[in-house]
Amino acid sequence: MKIKAGIVGGAGYTGGEMLRILINHPAVDISFVLSNSNAGNLVSDVHTDLLGDTDLRFSAELSQDIDVLFLCVGHGDAKKFLLANEINPTIKIIDLSQDFRLKEHAGTAWVYGLPELNREKIRKAKYIANPGCFATCIQLALLPLAAKGLLKGEVHINATTGSTGAGQSLATTSHFSWRNNNLSVYKAFEHQHLNEIGESLRQLDGAFNSSLNFIPQRGDFTRGILAAIYTDCDLPAEEIEQLYEDYYAGHAFTHVSKKNIDLKQVVNTNKALVHVEKHGNKIFIVSIIDNLLKGASGQAVQNMNLLFGLEERQGLALKAAAF
Amino acid sequence: MKIKAGIVGGAGYTGGEMLRILINHPAVDISFVLSNSNAGNLVSDVHTDLLGDTDLRFSAELSQDIDVLFLCVGHGDAKKFLLANEINPTIKIIDLSQDFRLKEHAGTAWVYGLPELNREKIRKAKYIANPGCFATCIQLALLPLAAKGLLKGEVHINATTGSTGAGQSLATTSHFSWRNNNLSVYKAFEHQHLNEIGESLRQLDGAFNSSLNFIPQRGDFTRGILAAIYTDCDLPAEEIEQLYEDYYAGHAFTHVSKKNIDLKQVVNTNKALVHVEKHGNKIFIVSIIDNLLKGASGQAVQNMNLLFGLEERQGLALKAAAF
Amino acid sequence: MKIKAGIVGGAGYTGGEMLRILINHPAVDISFVLSNSNAGNLVSDVHTDLLGDTDLRFSAELSQDIDVLFLCVGHGDAKKFLLANEINPTIKIIDLSQDFRLKEHAGTAWVYGLPELNREKIRKAKYIANPGCFATCIQLALLPLAAKGLLKGEVHINATTGSTGAGQSLATTSHFSWRNNNLSVYKAFEHQHLNEIGESLRQLDGAFNSSLNFIPQRGDFTRGILAAIYTDCDLPAEEIEQLYEDYYAGHAFTHVSKKNIDLKQVVNTNKALVHVEKHGNKIFIVSIIDNLLKGASGQAVQNMNLLFGLEERQGLALKAAAF
Amino acid sequence: MKIKAGIVGGAGYTGGEMLRILINHPAVDISFVLSNSNAGNLVSDVHTDLLGDTDLRFSAELSQDIDVLFLCVGHGDAKKFLLANEINPTIKIIDLSQDFRLKEHAGTAWVYGLPELNREKIRKAKYIANPGCFATCIQLALLPLAAKGLLKGEVHINATTGSTGAGQSLATTSHFSWRNNNLSVYKAFEHQHLNEIGESLRQLDGAFNSSLNFIPQRGDFTRGILAAIYTDCDLPAEEIEQLYEDYYAGHAFTHVSKKNIDLKQVVNTNKALVHVEKHGNKIFIVSIIDNLLKGASGQAVQNMNLLFGLEERQGLALKAAAF
Repeated sequence: MKIKAGIVGGAGYTGGEMLRILINHPAVDISFVLSNSNAGNLVSDVHTDLLGDTDLRFSAELSQDIDVLFLCVGHGDAKKFLLANEINPTIKIIDLSQDFRLKEHAGTAWVYGLPELNREKIRKAKYIANPGCFATCIQLALLPLAAKGLLKGEVHINATTGSTGAGQSLATTSHFSWRNNNLSVYKAFEHQHLNEIGESLRQLDGAFNSSLNFIPQRGDFTRGILAAIYTDCDLPAEEIEQLYEDYYAGHAFTHVSKKNIDLKQVVNTNKALVHVEKHGNKIFIVSIIDNLLKGASGQAVQNMNLLFGLEERQGLALKAAAF
Repeated sequence: MKIKAGIVGGAGYTGGEMLRILINHPAVDISFVLSNSNAGNLVSDVHTDLLGDTDLRFSAELSQDIDVLFLCVGHGDAKKFLLANEINPTIKIIDLSQDFRLKEHAGTAWVYGLPELNREKIRKAKYIANPGCFATCIQLALLPLAAKGLLKGEVHINATTGSTGAGQSLATTSHFSWRNNNLSVYKAFEHQHLNEIGESLRQLDGAFNSSLNFIPQRGDFTRGILAAIYTDCDLPAEEIEQLYEDYYAGHAFTHVSKKNIDLKQVVNTNKALVHVEKHGNKIFIVSIIDNLLKGASGQAVQNMNLLFGLEERQGLALKAAAF
Repeated sequence: MKIKAGIVGGAGYTGGEMLRILINHPAVDISFVLSNSNAGNLVSDVHTDLLGDTDLRFSAELSQDIDVLFLCVGHGDAKKFLLANEINPTIKIIDLSQDFRLKEHAGTAWVYGLPELNREKIRKAKYIANPGCFATCIQLALLPLAAKGLLKGEVHINATTGSTGAGQSLATTSHFSWRNNNLSVYKAFEHQHLNEIGESLRQLDGAFNSSLNFIPQRGDFTRGILAAIYTDCDLPAEEIEQLYEDYYAGHAFTHVSKKNIDLKQVVNTNKALVHVEKHGNKIFIVSIIDNLLKGASGQAVQNMNLLFGLEERQGLALKAAAF
Repeated sequence: MKIKAGIVGGAGYTGGEMLRILINHPAVDISFVLSNSNAGNLVSDVHTDLLGDTDLRFSAELSQDIDVLFLCVGHGDAKKFLLANEINPTIKIIDLSQDFRLKEHAGTAWVYGLPELNREKIRKAKYIANPGCFATCIQLALLPLAAKGLLKGEVHINATTGSTGAGQSLATTSHFSWRNNNLSVYKAFEHQHLNEIGESLRQLDGAFNSSLNFIPQRGDFTRGILAAIYTDCDLPAEEIEQLYEDYYAGHAFTHVSKKNIDLKQVVNTNKALVHVEKHGNKIFIVSIIDNLLKGASGQAVQNMNLLFGLEERQGLALKAAAF
């Protein structure tokens, strides 16, 4: 019997990606896709690439006859939705917003859904707080170091994101005439994902107490995040390489590349690639993900697979765009 | 003594290009730049590339102490502006909107400002209706044929425009996530520029009576229009080449390329290039312009140069972006 | 038992797409990937997006222990390969080059592999000549008209292709500094695909005898073809719409969109979308495909599915890139 | 009387930009453009955007009847050229390669041509070693600090360059299909420009002895460099702002922006913009230039203006591409 899934907020970017994945997932039936503004309309009228793939329509009504509920709404709106709608306690929830990510929700049923950090907890969880896109990309670069207590000094992070990271709302910085062939910095040292990154690092290394200097950049591409990160580290190059290989050995989607990497190796997949180099006393890590997949909806489905005891890659063997 | 210029609607794309050209024009002083929404603000706060180049501020007040007024406002708004504001009759006006382009304004003081069609009339004109961007690109491909009465059959036109052609308003089709790497058709057979193109062709060839089949496309670049055009034509290849060379011989900005052309040869310049080939009984013409320059503000300044007896290229020897 | 597949020319663009599809195809095992220049190397060293997905290596040796052989080599090289290598007659062959597409190969075992034209013949075929990318896109726009004998006059075609259509060889026109934000025409009226298109139309309508005026353009995107096509047609709008709906009713990948379409609706999928409008006495058709998928490797796998009696969409339910 | 200029290596990117600038420079006549591979050909056959602007042809012969010689050749080739060709001692030379940038050439006639560092020396110089593009962008961010001895700790630099930075040679990483929508790191911690940057900083602050941690990135745009830089600094925000304002007060092309900046503010101009913020005990600087202009040919002309006592901005009031 298939898993019955509901989606709240199906008209946005992450809702669309959720639909693109789930309509081909062999173990899932989509029970409903909620969108107030689009109720009654064909899903393929909004996500026009789905024409010919599904006759599904948006609905206005939440049904409780489901096994899992994906919340694909804006930050703050997930909490509001759960306050306004009592969800049957047998239903598992995966929230893609930031509303339940921080440790202040520890002790509740919410688990931070980064499989490379919390896979076993996720398997037994009820509610999953799906990580942020920058947070995923940066943590995957740093977790092996934190796990060995090797993060001693300041961490220097520059990461560039595609335009879909800012959602589909119209803004000056999302106008094609502005963004095409452009590059800019925003929220330097102050990005909201710093909190969840810090908490994860401290989960692995209680003594972690260094600065995370994070410069986010807006890139002129639609999908993907590339993070370039370094910090002081005494470990020799070979041991570092081995450390990363070992840490990600059992993980289905995160791989260590011996060669230099470029963003398009992961675009339109749920994979993350990390590449590690040693320069003097510094370890330098490049980490790449697709912000909408491993950084959002793909990871949410990976979490669903873990929650329901499915093979982790089911429905997520996505063809890379490659070009 | 310099020409004193006023600009109405200085905060938009064509207003910005007007400013970029005029602040370096050796024969012009900018007297004011009107923008209701930005009155009092620095021009460089809106057109941020002008930081360091000008301390000009937007003003809210129209001054009549000018020699020329550029109207850089939306279609319909030029007419409204002139109804609401009586302009001193000594002031020449160049309107970039479509409000005064059609022949219904013939007999008035308005001249259609395509120098390759009307240069001598422009020199003596008082008011100039600056041509549309598609209209400029397409007419430059067809004028030499019309002038010789060679446009007998249907004309087939496919032309692709950059995103700045749609102005700076935010829209789904101007969102970077949508437009990047995308291509689409709009207003097939129904583009509003067909009227002004038809009138120009009939001005040269009163008998012109064929269909103009025009397919406009939205390209994923910011600047430029490339038109690919063909029609039946009996003239041999060499005569056609000569016809075009002769027609554009005295024109400063329109050149005939013997080799195939690509859009970036004219981007960020006021130039137009046309390339002509013969295939069987068909003449095939490729025509390229920068939609904001030869297709708007650059041509407006070219018209100003003609109106005031300046050398046609003054202030318009712009460095191509090239890449 | 799975179908054993061999790939010749696995290091190019179409070979890479073949691999991206087949490693996830539930009914296929890849037996070998031939590449002389890369023999012994990991496939993921060349197609670096496959890191973590496959440990396959390129081989230098052709094995005959396969069920199907994909030829992903350059035009002319498929013929040479088959002359130099005798292939076991039980092995089915799918050739992605143009070497066996034309009717001169009729009466041989080769069938032109456009399922929307030849599905039943393909099911029973031994050797498949996979159609060209432009040819696929343009034929899908015209087949319903040809099938009803409605192609009476000249057909006007403007189609723009992504950079992967030109393969991975380095050339001035494939240099990023040249192609980015650029647009150009090439091979106007003379593209080599005109022959295969003409033959298909005559297969459906023996009397077809009109000109196909085809203007190919180089776009500044990597994947996809958009064709904008029109011709004279007396049929009323509703009947045309119905004609297209009927023609593609049973086809898994080609769909008729009632709304205007844009290229990214099909990028990274095996789908084709067509949209039809009536303007005066003209029918106007927009047709879109991904040149590497429905225009090459995806269609090759679709043909394989048909050859082996599999469900046509198996292994081809690809997630659109969408953005 | 005009300055007579010769260009060696006129067929490359920087040679092309030199030509685009000099043909409009009111005080310069181009005497010859040397290109062995193109001798006899029209300049506009190679730099096709110059069609209609110049009838100049490439020549094979060096003439000594010039006032200034621009060397636009590859690294190493400038030295070779000067060894093979004795240049009349009255001729000033501006070399765009890295061959004479380092201090080992001190005491010779070569001056490092960064006007914001060496303007007075440049005025009196005979030979100018024009700075590297990354080096220019990064130094402009750091000079005011070095001048006050404020560079005490490690400096963290991430800078992304456009594709023209790598020249016009064809390479995998310059292929459109690879680079479009892509991002990657190269030469982390090891870029060759680190030497010239270090020397400039020590010229202003002999005690400067900190690490420059430099991560260069390849962006998917053609023109421009954006550098995001930070280091520890005790100075309060207002004093830092003032420090930068004061340092660049008299400089024609480098401006301090109070607001956040984006790359396209300087594309196709000779300007540099820097923006400074204070975050905790860190100073954060964003710096932008066009790599081919302020980072190469534009700065070379600026140096020529200084060498010949012209107004620094002559011929360099370039219209920004803006979009």
